[in-house]
Amino acid sequence: MRLYDCAASANGYKLRHVLSWLGRPYELIPVDIFAGESHTPDFLRHKNPAGRIPVLEPEPGRFLAESNAILLFLTADTSLLPRDAFERAQVHQWLFFEQNCVEPNIGTARFWVLTGRARLHHPDVLRVRVEAGRAALTTLERHLQHEDFLVGGRPTVADIGLYAYAHLAPDVGLALEDFPAVSRWLARVKAQPGHIGALAPYPANAMVSAT
Amino acid sequence: MRLYDCAASANGYKLRHVLSWLGRPYELIPVDIFAGESHTPDFLRHKNPAGRIPVLEPEPGRFLAESNAILLFLTADTSLLPRDAFERAQVHQWLFFEQNCVEPNIGTARFWVLTGRARLHHPDVLRVRVEAGRAALTTLERHLQHEDFLVGGRPTVADIGLYAYAHLAPDVGLALEDFPAVSRWLARVKAQPGHIGALAPYPANAMVSAT
Repeated sequence: MRLYDCAASANGYKLRHVLSWLGRPYELIPVDIFAGESHTPDFLRHKNPAGRIPVLEPEPGRFLAESNAILLFLTADTSLLPRDAFERAQVHQWLFFEQNCVEPNIGTARFWVLTGRARLHHPDVLRVRVEAGRAALTTLERHLQHEDFLVGGRPTVADIGLYAYAHLAPDVGLALEDFPAVSRWLARVKAQPGHIGALAPYPANAMVSAT
Repeated sequence: MRLYDCAASANGYKLRHVLSWLGRPYELIPVDIFAGESHTPDFLRHKNPAGRIPVLEPEPGRFLAESNAILLFLTADTSLLPRDAFERAQVHQWLFFEQNCVEPNIGTARFWVLTGRARLHHPDVLRVRVEAGRAALTTLERHLQHEDFLVGGRPTVADIGLYAYAHLAPDVGLALEDFPAVSRWLARVKAQPGHIGALAPYPANAMVSAT
């Protein structure tokens, strides 16, 4: 099993996290996304038409993209994915929420801030994303005030999926102290098996300078 | 089975589409989201902590949110969701792509344009979303140049999920003529059973005026 990934990607972090949790061996193939390696004709045709990492190659020549689809694939038939149909649907609910409300806001804002891209647009562009990221954390806070984990009172792949960008919120100026239930949940997830520590910083060739 | 929905929502449209395709009866509960009905304490506590529609109540007192999670729940054990684990993962891949690249760009831009909210921010805010929507359609075009449907050569719930916002791209100035494979695919999906026609326009209380 191969994982095409970039060490600075928090979408990739989710997969390194779950593979560590499950103790699954895999070969890591670094992709230099900032040098265009995810936009070659071969990558776009066979690995991911969206030109993004992470991509999983579970067996030679078969490729699966989108981090949360890969999370569900890797945890099928494990204790991290509930067998009950409604609980499984709740795991899906949180993973879709993550890709719709957390990643495009906290994740994209963080990428813009840490690589200098925030300067390329009017400040409103960043501000709208950060405020939507705050709303996403508020949603999580509302739910986690009543729950120890996102679904079913025990760790699931939903917690791994949401942890990745939620724990990076301070990088865009969102203080986790304002979200005490989220903070307690982050500590609970971090204390589970498989925790893998911090992401790599963005590489030098990711940076843009003001023109 | 109850569906809490707003007739102008394309996320809700997906569910009305799949329920029509499957011939499943349901009770539609209109939610006036522009009057705050999805942000009452009861709605946030019991129906969806994100304060959004659509929400499905498959049996009294159980609530499921996120349109694509509901799509997967409704199509479990139907021909619209492949049984093969890898094909099912590919359906997940496209549904996550939809919530990450299509809906937050084409969907959010369309909402801002049609309700007057685009005027509330610097033009860059809208422009970045429309350009990301164009990139999402380019991804779909790349894939559909080689495929009649998104997964496995036959209609699946992924096609229903992607159709909703892709067919609305002209509302944000993205001409479908620039995406011929996407256009042919949209026509193929529209020709399948269950097609439900156009969305309702945004209601008068959705509109904001320039201040």
